[in-house]
Amino acid sequence: MKKFLNTADSFLPDALAGLAAAHPDLRVDLEARTVTRARGATENKVALVSGGGSGHEPLHAGFVGAGMLDAACPGEVFTSPVPDQMLAAAKAVDGGAGVVFVVKNYTGDVMNFQMAAELAGDEGIAVETVLVNDDVAVQDSTFTAGRRGTGATVFVEKIAGAAAARGDDLAAVAELGRRVNAASRSFAVALTACTTPGSGEPGFDLPEDEIEVGVGIHGEPGRSREKLRPAREIVADAVGAILDDHDLASGDEAIVMVNGMGGTPLSELYLVYGELASIFAEKGVGIARNLVGDYVTSLDMAGCSITVCKAEEPFLALWDAPVHTPALRWGV
Amino acid sequence: MKKFLNTADSFLPDALAGLAAAHPDLRVDLEARTVTRARGATENKVALVSGGGSGHEPLHAGFVGAGMLDAACPGEVFTSPVPDQMLAAAKAVDGGAGVVFVVKNYTGDVMNFQMAAELAGDEGIAVETVLVNDDVAVQDSTFTAGRRGTGATVFVEKIAGAAAARGDDLAAVAELGRRVNAASRSFAVALTACTTPGSGEPGFDLPEDEIEVGVGIHGEPGRSREKLRPAREIVADAVGAILDDHDLASGDEAIVMVNGMGGTPLSELYLVYGELASIFAEKGVGIARNLVGDYVTSLDMAGCSITVCKAEEPFLALWDAPVHTPALRWGV
Repeated sequence: MKKFLNTADSFLPDALAGLAAAHPDLRVDLEARTVTRARGATENKVALVSGGGSGHEPLHAGFVGAGMLDAACPGEVFTSPVPDQMLAAAKAVDGGAGVVFVVKNYTGDVMNFQMAAELAGDEGIAVETVLVNDDVAVQDSTFTAGRRGTGATVFVEKIAGAAAARGDDLAAVAELGRRVNAASRSFAVALTACTTPGSGEPGFDLPEDEIEVGVGIHGEPGRSREKLRPAREIVADAVGAILDDHDLASGDEAIVMVNGMGGTPLSELYLVYGELASIFAEKGVGIARNLVGDYVTSLDMAGCSITVCKAEEPFLALWDAPVHTPALRWGV
Repeated sequence: MKKFLNTADSFLPDALAGLAAAHPDLRVDLEARTVTRARGATENKVALVSGGGSGHEPLHAGFVGAGMLDAACPGEVFTSPVPDQMLAAAKAVDGGAGVVFVVKNYTGDVMNFQMAAELAGDEGIAVETVLVNDDVAVQDSTFTAGRRGTGATVFVEKIAGAAAARGDDLAAVAELGRRVNAASRSFAVALTACTTPGSGEPGFDLPEDEIEVGVGIHGEPGRSREKLRPAREIVADAVGAILDDHDLASGDEAIVMVNGMGGTPLSELYLVYGELASIFAEKGVGIARNLVGDYVTSLDMAGCSITVCKAEEPFLALWDAPVHTPALRWGV
């Protein structure tokens, strides 16, 4: 294993200390394992809290800031955070208007966020939960009952975060988040496995001429293992899987993300985006907004995921609203 | 070799087509191999043109946009663009106030940009050149007489770009760019080699327990090959090499970039930043601004570089000025 780290055990706190040093407008509580906005709770604003296993950076801590998340709870690498983290985050950022938990659909996350919601309720904090389950690759998987939650998390956090920032109430922010998730589909392909600091070994074996199609963000198996093929064909299959499951029709518009898993050069992601854009153009589906880059990674995995969200009203206006986080920033 | 590509030969045009599809505010001329702002030349504004071998994305095309570059000339992977590209770019973006070429110090780039400057001069375009040579690792190297140009390119392009945007004249913009370069130092460490689409093989062999210290952005050898060590020690050596060559003193402020080479997870880059921040704190040198992420990559290389620029007047104000490019965006 070749990584920039001191010891495997100190990897997460050391990385969080670096995040704190780089972004003084974030407050990283190494004890409580929470990342919040340094300015604290915003009175009367619905607060968004997310979290999940580490190893997917910039998700989630990289999306904490004005117009997006109020707090993130980083678990150990590929491991759900615990309810105490989520409770601490909710208490730190609740401004009296309630808290929305954005939860990727993995069994541990779902269970722990549910427990945290109950604990927060006991303390008088109103909580709504938005479950993200956009990955069309498999129905159930290693860590999931039902579809996995992946790239749509970024869309939910951005759009619901903008709604909270403009003053929408708890029910409205949560409902909007659920609508974004319902309008989104994702599919991922891995060229290589990833290596966790703890294990020091690749999570699975993938021969030099094979790819994992429909892979999960922890390297969970997907639909099939196939021979490496031209990008055009891989993208066509991934987009096909998404559109087969989606009601996007000619004349519709979408928000699209081509996301690198951590070890894929940006040039390849643009190449993938170009193939995707050709397919969308053929189908008459417009791409109103796009992201191309590393947003939901799997440590050093070479691979990419595609996420497509139908641009229903009022998604685009909220997408365009100002955001100021380490990983997404515009308008400020 | 596992990459998202169609054929090795079409890698660059396919990636550029994707860049064009993703960013309608850029104009990608696949024939002339230039990337310019779609709005064309800005009258009476000094235009900034850069370029170099591809494989370092987002450098340079990802920095084309308001407040930074007016044009980029992507060469083949790890190969200098040709003078015709640079001339075409200069003609496309000159608004009558002249053009600054930002040139990384590699023999091919220097020669070709010099020829382009002469050709542009013949056509009545005033050209100034800013040579970037910030890498303290080695004096001469595989592709260079003198120090290599690396991360400081981003600082030069941002700060000189902001000066051009506010209306500084040709001599002033060029002089500022030279000052930024003179105030900057970089040092890089590779954990793995990178693989070009053309060769299909890693550019060099690096055993599982060794790192290349002082590596160049094409995988050129550095100062030494060493055993993998804790990040804290690697960062201390890299920062030491930079500060040994720099006049930064206690009480000074710096702009710092921790840059991933393409295959390194963001969490590791933050960990590196944290170690760097501790060293700077001990030395009493402030970090006024920072970038942590992939800005000057070497395809899929795992590794990182550190760039430090002394924050002389008026660097910070120009750094903070609005920028709107695919890879750097704030204030708009």
